[in-house]
Amino acid sequence: MAAQIEETLKRIQTSDGVVGLVIFNNDGIPIKTNMDNAMSVRYAGLVQQLIATSQVEIKKDDPNDNLTYLRLRTTDNEIMVIPDKHYTMVVIQKPTGSRSPM
Amino acid sequence: MAAQIEETLKRIQTSDGVVGLVIFNNDGIPIKTNMDNAMSVRYAGLVQQLIATSQVEIKKDDPNDNLTYLRLRTTDNEIMVIPDKHYTMVVIQKPTGSRSPM
Repeated sequence: MAAQIEETLKRIQTSDGVVGLVIFNNDGIPIKTNMDNAMSVRYAGLVQQLIATSQVEIKKDDPNDNLTYLRLRTTDNEIMVIPDKHYTMVVIQKPTGSRSPM
Repeated sequence: MAAQIEETLKRIQTSDGVVGLVIFNNDGIPIKTNMDNAMSVRYAGLVQQLIATSQVEIKKDDPNDNLTYLRLRTTDNEIMVIPDKHYTMVVIQKPTGSRSPM
């Protein structure tokens, strides 16, 4: 199983334009990342805030509703967020598919 | 020009699965909506928070970077956000393309 996960993460990391990948736990602590710690913690912090803010509002209509995916497109990057019960994965990609060091 | 905008909004509103559309100004006041006021104001409030939180973090790396698009996928809905200088548009769509009153 672990090998399969590593393989999948490797595939994502080496996809065109991907400049960063971080997985963090529900405490916002990066447990897997290919970026430096400061950047990883910053993305975890931002994403945790966005998820928390969204979940509060989303659940007002339907307590069973859940955020399953979040995507931010900025002029420079595309930030894709996959929240799950215990972990959240964030992938940062250059929209033009160009690679630049993070 | 106004007719063209109306036409575009009509086309979006009648697209498959679209259950809500709201445009609000930078004060969070809905100026165009096909939902009731309470729901429109709620979406405007949520989206304003998400945009503000994102912009602060995004601009730390590059002050010229800007959020150009935000998409939330929940179990029940897909929320698409197009922020601009003076107005922000939010489109709420049922992922399965089914229409249910908002």
